[in-house]
Order: sequence, then C-alpha cells, then structure tokens
Amino acid sequence: MAINYQLILDSICDEVKGLLSKGKVASYIPQLSAVSPLQFGIAAYCLDGRVFTAGDAQKKFSVQSITKLFALALAFAREGDKIWSRVGREPSGNPFNSLSQLEYEYGIPRNPFINAGALVIHDILAARFVQADIALLQFIRMLARQPALDFDKAVALSEHQTAHRNYAIAHLMKDFGNLHNPVETIIEGYCRQCSITMNCIELARAASFLANHGSIPWDGTRILDASSSKRLNALMLTCGTYDAAGDFAYRVGLPAKSGVGGGIVALVPGELAIAVWSPGLDATGNSLAGVMALERFTTLTARSIF
Amino acid sequence: MAINYQLILDSICDEVKGLLSKGKVASYIPQLSAVSPLQFGIAAYCLDGRVFTAGDAQKKFSVQSITKLFALALAFAREGDKIWSRVGREPSGNPFNSLSQLEYEYGIPRNPFINAGALVIHDILAARFVQADIALLQFIRMLARQPALDFDKAVALSEHQTAHRNYAIAHLMKDFGNLHNPVETIIEGYCRQCSITMNCIELARAASFLANHGSIPWDGTRILDASSSKRLNALMLTCGTYDAAGDFAYRVGLPAKSGVGGGIVALVPGELAIAVWSPGLDATGNSLAGVMALERFTTLTARSIF
Amino acid sequence: MAINYQLILDSICDEVKGLLSKGKVASYIPQLSAVSPLQFGIAAYCLDGRVFTAGDAQKKFSVQSITKLFALALAFAREGDKIWSRVGREPSGNPFNSLSQLEYEYGIPRNPFINAGALVIHDILAARFVQADIALLQFIRMLARQPALDFDKAVALSEHQTAHRNYAIAHLMKDFGNLHNPVETIIEGYCRQCSITMNCIELARAASFLANHGSIPWDGTRILDASSSKRLNALMLTCGTYDAAGDFAYRVGLPAKSGVGGGIVALVPGELAIAVWSPGLDATGNSLAGVMALERFTTLTARSIF
Amino acid sequence: MAINYQLILDSICDEVKGLLSKGKVASYIPQLSAVSPLQFGIAAYCLDGRVFTAGDAQKKFSVQSITKLFALALAFAREGDKIWSRVGREPSGNPFNSLSQLEYEYGIPRNPFINAGALVIHDILAARFVQADIALLQFIRMLARQPALDFDKAVALSEHQTAHRNYAIAHLMKDFGNLHNPVETIIEGYCRQCSITMNCIELARAASFLANHGSIPWDGTRILDASSSKRLNALMLTCGTYDAAGDFAYRVGLPAKSGVGGGIVALVPGELAIAVWSPGLDATGNSLAGVMALERFTTLTARSIF
Repeated sequence: MAINYQLILDSICDEVKGLLSKGKVASYIPQLSAVSPLQFGIAAYCLDGRVFTAGDAQKKFSVQSITKLFALALAFAREGDKIWSRVGREPSGNPFNSLSQLEYEYGIPRNPFINAGALVIHDILAARFVQADIALLQFIRMLARQPALDFDKAVALSEHQTAHRNYAIAHLMKDFGNLHNPVETIIEGYCRQCSITMNCIELARAASFLANHGSIPWDGTRILDASSSKRLNALMLTCGTYDAAGDFAYRVGLPAKSGVGGGIVALVPGELAIAVWSPGLDATGNSLAGVMALERFTTLTARSIF
Repeated sequence: MAINYQLILDSICDEVKGLLSKGKVASYIPQLSAVSPLQFGIAAYCLDGRVFTAGDAQKKFSVQSITKLFALALAFAREGDKIWSRVGREPSGNPFNSLSQLEYEYGIPRNPFINAGALVIHDILAARFVQADIALLQFIRMLARQPALDFDKAVALSEHQTAHRNYAIAHLMKDFGNLHNPVETIIEGYCRQCSITMNCIELARAASFLANHGSIPWDGTRILDASSSKRLNALMLTCGTYDAAGDFAYRVGLPAKSGVGGGIVALVPGELAIAVWSPGLDATGNSLAGVMALERFTTLTARSIF
Repeated sequence: MAINYQLILDSICDEVKGLLSKGKVASYIPQLSAVSPLQFGIAAYCLDGRVFTAGDAQKKFSVQSITKLFALALAFAREGDKIWSRVGREPSGNPFNSLSQLEYEYGIPRNPFINAGALVIHDILAARFVQADIALLQFIRMLARQPALDFDKAVALSEHQTAHRNYAIAHLMKDFGNLHNPVETIIEGYCRQCSITMNCIELARAASFLANHGSIPWDGTRILDASSSKRLNALMLTCGTYDAAGDFAYRVGLPAKSGVGGGIVALVPGELAIAVWSPGLDATGNSLAGVMALERFTTLTARSIF
Repeated sequence: MAINYQLILDSICDEVKGLLSKGKVASYIPQLSAVSPLQFGIAAYCLDGRVFTAGDAQKKFSVQSITKLFALALAFAREGDKIWSRVGREPSGNPFNSLSQLEYEYGIPRNPFINAGALVIHDILAARFVQADIALLQFIRMLARQPALDFDKAVALSEHQTAHRNYAIAHLMKDFGNLHNPVETIIEGYCRQCSITMNCIELARAASFLANHGSIPWDGTRILDASSSKRLNALMLTCGTYDAAGDFAYRVGLPAKSGVGGGIVALVPGELAIAVWSPGLDATGNSLAGVMALERFTTLTARSIF
C-alpha cells in the first residue's frame, strides 16, 4: 500500500507546533539570532520525482554545516579514498568544536563533519580548484537544480568576525602539517561555504543523489559510485548530527546531516531525501522540532534503515 | 533474482584465507591466547529458516563482548527506557575500557557496549533476577534454540583473575552512585557472562530476532517491539564494534556486535543474521578476517542498510 | 632581633577567628563531618626545643593525608631513589583523586602526595614490613616522641566503606602492574594509615626533622641525609597541598603538607616546624583558616623560603 | 667560611663537558638549530656586586621563554593582583603548549610561564604601553644595565613563521574572551619579545632584583615590593621550568626560569642570581647541561632554598 506522504507531512507539521518555542536559536552571529524560532518547514523529494511539502518549505535559511556534506561529496568524488589519510571516519564523542581531541590525535580530525574535518575537506578542495567556495557553490547549484543559490555575504562576514575557534583549529592543524593552504584562505572560504542559503525543497533535492546510490535521480548523472554513496550514508549516520549521532540514530534511524541554522537533511536509501527546518536548537545544536519531525516521520512511515 | 548465499559464503571463506595469519589473538587470558588464529567460520541464518555455513561454522568459541548485546536486549525488554538514565547511547570515541571519559562524565557510561556500560546493564539485571548470569544464559539458550549452551568456567576464572581494569571501572561507578549491587557480585557475574561459548550457527540464530523486528523467526515470540528492536540495531551500528564503529559502518554498513574472542554477529534487517568467527584481531580489537568477510558479504550481496 | 613567636601565634589566632565559620568540614565520613568547624590550633616546634602554641593546639584531630609525608619519608629512607621508578615528582594539575591522568600516564602516579602515589608508597612499605600500617605508626610515634599515638579504628572503618575511588585507583594501577600487593591489603592499610590522630604539637614535632636537614632535633638521629631531606621539602612545596600547591607557594612560600581533617604542617628550614589545624576546608580541600594562618605567619615573621 | 664561587663555577664547567653532546638543540627555527651544542656558560651575580663567570659566559644567546619572567615582573609591577583574574598560578601538569587544558579551563591559562599565560601577559602589557615589546625591551635593558640589548629580527621573523600553535592558543583565548588586543598584534609582539639576545652575565644581572627582595642591587631602585618579589620566586619554583618544575625543584631547589635557547636563570634569595647556558635540551625542553650545572651548584654551595 502506498504511503500518503502529504498526509504524513501535514500531520507532522501539526504535531511539532507546540515545540517551536522550546528550541534556542543560534546566537553567535546576528543574522542567525534574529530569525524567529516559530517557523517549521519540511520537504520530501522522492526518487521518482514527486515532491511533498508542508509548512515553511519554501522559506530560505542558512544551511551552515549541512554544506559539509556536499563539500565531502565533492572532495570524495574527486580524490577518492586518499582523503582518509587526512581525516578520520569515527564519531568524535566530544563537542563539535573540541581542540583537545584534535591535539591528542595529532591534528587528524575525527571525521569530516566536525569543524576541524570540514576545514581539512575545504583545504583539499582548495588544492583542486582555483576557488574552492565557488566550486562548491556551483556543485550545490547543480545538485539542487537551482542556479540562483548563493552565499549570504552578511552571514559570511559575521561568521568570519567570530571565527576565533575555527582559526584556533586551523592553526593547530597547520602546526601538525594537516593544512596545506594558508589559514586565512581556508577560514574565509569556509565561512562563505557555510553561508549558503537554501530552502527545504532545494536541500532535499540536492541530497537526493545520496538516496539514489550516487546518481542524480532526474538525469542519472553519476556523482559517486554506489559503494561510495553507501559509505557517505554510513558517515552521516555515525557522525552527521554532532555528538548526538548515537541518539539520533536511536530515535530516527536515518543517515542525516544537520546545521546550526536549524536545517536537517536525511535519507531513506532507495526512496527519498527529506529536509526539515526549524531554527530552534536543542542542547546538542540540532533543530529541536526538526529531530522530532524526523522521528515522527520514521515512526509513521516505518522507513528507518534498521 | 535470488542470491546464492552458499556460493557467496564459500567464496568469502576462500578469500579471507590469506588474512588469517595477520590478526593477533587476544593474549590477556591463557584460554584465548591458546586458540589458533588459522580458523574461520561463517554462518547466515535467514528469517525463512534456511541456514548457510562455511568453514569452521560449527566450532565453539568464546563469544565474550557479544553477550553485551543479549544482556542489553534482556534489560531493555524488562526495564524499557528507564535504563537510559544510567547509560548513554553515544559512541565513546575512546578505547573500550577508558576510565577518563567515565570520570569526566560522572560515572555514566557512554553506551551499553563498552565495558562500563555492560557492567551497568549487568547491575540492572542483578536487581531483577536472583542470578543475573544464569538468567542471561537461559535467555541466550532460548534465543539460540540450544539448551546446551554454557559458561566456560576456566575462561570465567581467568577473566576474573585479570579483571583489574573492570574492577577499577566498577568501583569508579560505585563511587558515582551508578552501581547498586556490590562490585564483587557484578564483576563475578560479568566474567561468567563473557565466558559463554557458542558457534557461528548458534550465534546467528540467537541474534536473528533483531533482524526480524524483535520477534523470534521460528515461533513469533516477541522479545522486543519493532521500535525497540530497530533502536538496538541503531546502537549496534553506532557503538557495536568498539571505537572502530565509524569505520565498520563505512566499510560494512550493517548493525553488528563483536567480541574479543574473534566473533562478530551482524544483521540484515528483514532478511537474516550472520555470524563470523576468526580469532585474529586487528588493532581495534575486532576480528581482522571477520570484518573483511562482512565487508565482502555486503559488497557481494549489495545488502548494506544504506 | 629575636622574633616573639608567642605574640605572633596569639595574634594569628585572633585574626583567623572570623574565618572559622567560612570553611566547609569534610563530609564523606561521619567522623569528620561531625567535627565543629569553629576550632583552630597552632603550634611551632623550634629546632632549639622551644614550643609555642595557641588555640586548640592540644586537641587531637585526624591527620589524614599528612601521613603521606611520613610514609614517603619512611619509604625514601629505606629504598632511596628506587621509589621514583614507580611514582613521579611532578605536580598533578588535576584534582587529587583523578583517574584520567593516571590512565594517560600508564599507572604511574604524578607524585607521592596524591592518593594514587600514596597507595604506591604504601605498597612499597608493604613489601618491606610485615604490616606496613603498624610500621608507619611506630615511625610516627618515634618522630613525634609520643608512644601513645594510635589509629582511630572508627575512622579507618568509615574510610574503608567509602573507599570506592581509592579501590578504582588501586585496581587501575594493578592493571598497569604498578601495585605488587593485593588491592585489599593496600586499601585496608592505607585507610588505617589515614586514621592516625595527632594534635598540633605532636605534628610539628614529628615533622621537625625535615626542617633540620633530616635529623631529629633532640637527639640527632638521622632519618634522611641532608640532600634527601631537602628534596622532600621541595616535593612538599610543589605537590603538598593538592592542586593548590602553586597558590600555596605563592601565598605562603613554605614547604607544607595538608590533610582533609583540616591539618597542615609546614617547615621553615633550619628553624622550625609549624602545625595548624582548623577543620573548615576551602574549595581546594585545604584548611581555610589554616592556609590564612600560615600566610600571616610568613608575613609577620618574614620567614618564607623565598 | 666564605664560598669560593670562582672555584665552584670552574669545577662545574669542567664537570658538565661530557654532557654537552647529549642534549638536543631546539630545531623548530633555523637560527636555533644552527647553534652548536658544545657550548656552556655560567655567571653568578652576587648582590654585593661581585660577578663570577666560567665558560662561554659572554656569548650571546636567544633567551626566549626567560623573557616571560621579565614580562610578568613588568605586568605585575604595573597592574598588581589584577592580573590573576586572567591567568592562574598553578603548575600545568601538561606540556607547555597544551591546548587541551586551556580548553577545559575556559581560556584561563594555568600560569604566566606557559605560552598561553605569556600571551595573556603580553596582552596586558599591550593595553598599558603603545608598544609592549619595546616597553619590555627597555625594562630588560634597565634591569641588565645594558642599553645595547636588542631583538634579533631574524629570530623573531622565523618564530612568527612557525607560530601556528601560538596562533591557535591566542585564537582560542580570544574565543573565550581572554585576549583583548588583536591576535596578530600579540603574536607579533610576543615573537619579538622571545627573540631578545643576552649573555649569562647580563641575564644574571637582570634577574638579580628578584634575589634582592624586589630592588635593583646596585642602586636600590624598587621594581617590586618584597612580598611581590617573594611571590614571583614562588611561581618560578613551581612553574618556571615547563612540566619538569617538580623534578627541577627536587634536584636543584632554586626558583628558576628556563628558555628553549638553552638558558636558565636561577635565584639564591638574599645572595645572588645565577645564569647558565648550554643549547642542548633534555626531553622536557630544559638545558640538559644547564640543569645539571645548577644541581651541582646547589650541592657544592649548599645553597638550596630548602
């Protein structure tokens, strides 16, 4: 029996309303802290081309750390397994911006989804492309089928002004020899990368190739081979939601990547990509209503990978 | 097209032969160190009742940490979500017997699959049952459909004599108030728990209910509800193979639990449970040939959960 | 010009009265928590035999960790520099009962004045003497010229019942091979060691050999050679007051050893030993009024070592 | 009986010759790595004006971290106890450039003699003086009675080019709000500070006020009051030789500050300041022959503070 996705998304949208005021909007830059927490959007992009939406699915938001997923896909597509000599594949077991672990592990970040790892991935892209941030933007535009996607320059600037911890991380890795480009280049590019703005529909579409064994659903363009795509899915599950990955896998059971702007994109392999957005965060930095929405989604559709 | 599992298992058995001498047998107790590393067994238990085996699938081995999976299932079945107030659900990001993390986190173990967490689970069982180790043995006998399963008393005794780190962990948790029974009781029971001996066929059968949404395949007995079963699967994926869980998910992509005796049990939800055994371990404490065998299995069958 | 020690002690006794209610009496065992914080004693034992006292200088208290100093002196006198292969000489930079540091440093305690180090010293004594605790008691009786000194059996028993963290430390060191006697033997002996009861006069006299280049002032008996005595003084300064040693050196500037019972013994090399006692502790576990008293003493007498 | 310092210095100079080839010259910048390890100088500056020297006492070397002592004295003289709200007074118990401890302790460095602490002190000076590095140079020139002292610009430049770890530390403290000036300003100034070049005679003279209760011996100019001077002495003893401070106190028993250029300055309060230099370092980053020379000095003169 076919699942009525529209009904399910509408129902979820209703259910999470009471939660919207309970999250805490990210406060470290004015552009994020000014966003009203009372917003919620959800969009599912099915591999057969159908799109279902509810709530503020067309509203743009700052995707932030979710870009780490696309940056990793681009670097992995170009460099293959070589990247794993510079970044690990294990959950961090520590807050996403910890310097201690990085120091104990000689400048090799735990995985590509913590900040340190994302800076290394950006560094890898910067060795490949004249402008890593532009190359990544074009890649995401292509994945999202949306040439109008762009950086938010005010967000990028604000992030840069408060990027002291990322500078600390980058310099520490530079000290260990695990950053090849100048620190300044990488931090600037990374701040622009994080500032990309998307809506739920665009985000679900952009990630859909990862639910489709590595090929873009609408035209079959191969981004990653099936095995590599499966492996990125595994990384999303074990490391995609900061140090709440274990809890997220337990509650939701889908590969996902979250961002501090309140977005989360998740995958039902072989079926669909789903994006949720709600700016209020829980204590682990993930969208409070977003996680709950995805938990309800897997319960209502029985679509966990487990 | 049906998968020819027999062909695949035979082929894997052939492929891993060259690896058997490369692992390192656990050396901390004589009973484990005396085992020849040149052994490999594999067994798949399909939910429809078919069993496929290759190599030393009938040879008994010490299942060790794999019992943590069954102990967790029993505790979870009896106590439900209450157990999560005493043990976490996050990967540890540290070696499986780390005291540092336990100290920083006030005696709450990261997850039920590190030693600290397993001691807490044993403590929970010890509050429920007159003899936790006996209760667990009977539970595993029932799951494995094998009433002859038993402790290996020599192994249990040896483990007890070298259990100083587990004693340290238990006393630290006792100091934090997270161990309710006497330390001695828990260590003794836990050492017996770890000494249970099984072969690959028994192990695959015993875990098959977790691939079957929580019900025993041959008679439908419900051990866990579907949601709880899914959740244990998620925990296995994120935390089941010590601090190599991320790498294991990346390479194999199946929920699994490993033991220092060289066994690993993994699940293809909705289809089968698979057990491998080869005593030679890699640097992370997982069976070297066993992990490779499971990686080949998911590649040859395209049966990853991702 | 001769210093009028009596005047100075009386004055200090007056000055600290207002502080007595501000400290917090140790609460982990009933015998310590029942002591009134409104007590303060001070005694100076000059190398020429004069004794000056003020306040509750004759009142007995549980010397606790101060016994670590005498145990170290006894072990050092008997074993010499061999002991440093099993315990370090560096400040710990962490709370006195930290397991993390011990784990990172492979079971070698930072110094003999943290609990881990004191357990190793007790283990060394236990290899030398039939009963390490009795040998140590006799040694302290001799140093204090007070044959009536004894263990407080109720205190020892209470300590033993709450010794989970010390058990954890001892088992961890056992696991690393740095404890040669059975854990139980060492913990029991160590709990008795800590339970010894003294007053300020006895304590100052017992430590006076360390201000006298290693010889007992009244009869010239050599306990340690001058160089060894100087070295224990250095250890007291850098490690004697838990993780407040830097602050204590900064404020007081004398080698000292404190205990959780509220006692502190300090040395003015070549002149005197001084003992203070007040049960209320500051946040670092040192006697609040006691530290202040010693700070006033070095200010009023200009008797810092610096 | 008067001590024949000249005889003692000559004898020490002889004794350490065999050690000179055993140390390892600092290798992180070319200017330090090019220095021959087969050099040794020693100079004692007595408070009565006599100077004794042996070996390469007139040879200039890069004083490096020893400038932390003078920077602290200047900041403490100007700001008093206010500085302790931004930097601690405890030994670090970790390598001198650890980020982990800084992260756990919210950007407050353990003490002014680790790099993080020295950066904070430089930041404090930078708020006081138009050019902190120039102000410090002038202060040291005055203390050393040597107006020709200067920065070594090539050393400063090299240090700056490899200063990634210091940048990491500074940015982390900036993130915690414990650095008020721009990171770039502080790192640049700090690199110049470290590049100051002195010889043993100048160094001993410059530190002599700290052996003289805070007053310059030859003209009585008060730099610090007696109590503050005593307190800096205490800090030198507990924190002045990286994470070997405990061992140094044990072996030498004098307040001291060392630098990676192979210099060490130490104090005999009330008598003299002594400087040694030998470029070969031990595993803790202190001059191997220098530490041994000071150990011999306190043994031969019986001039430990203990």
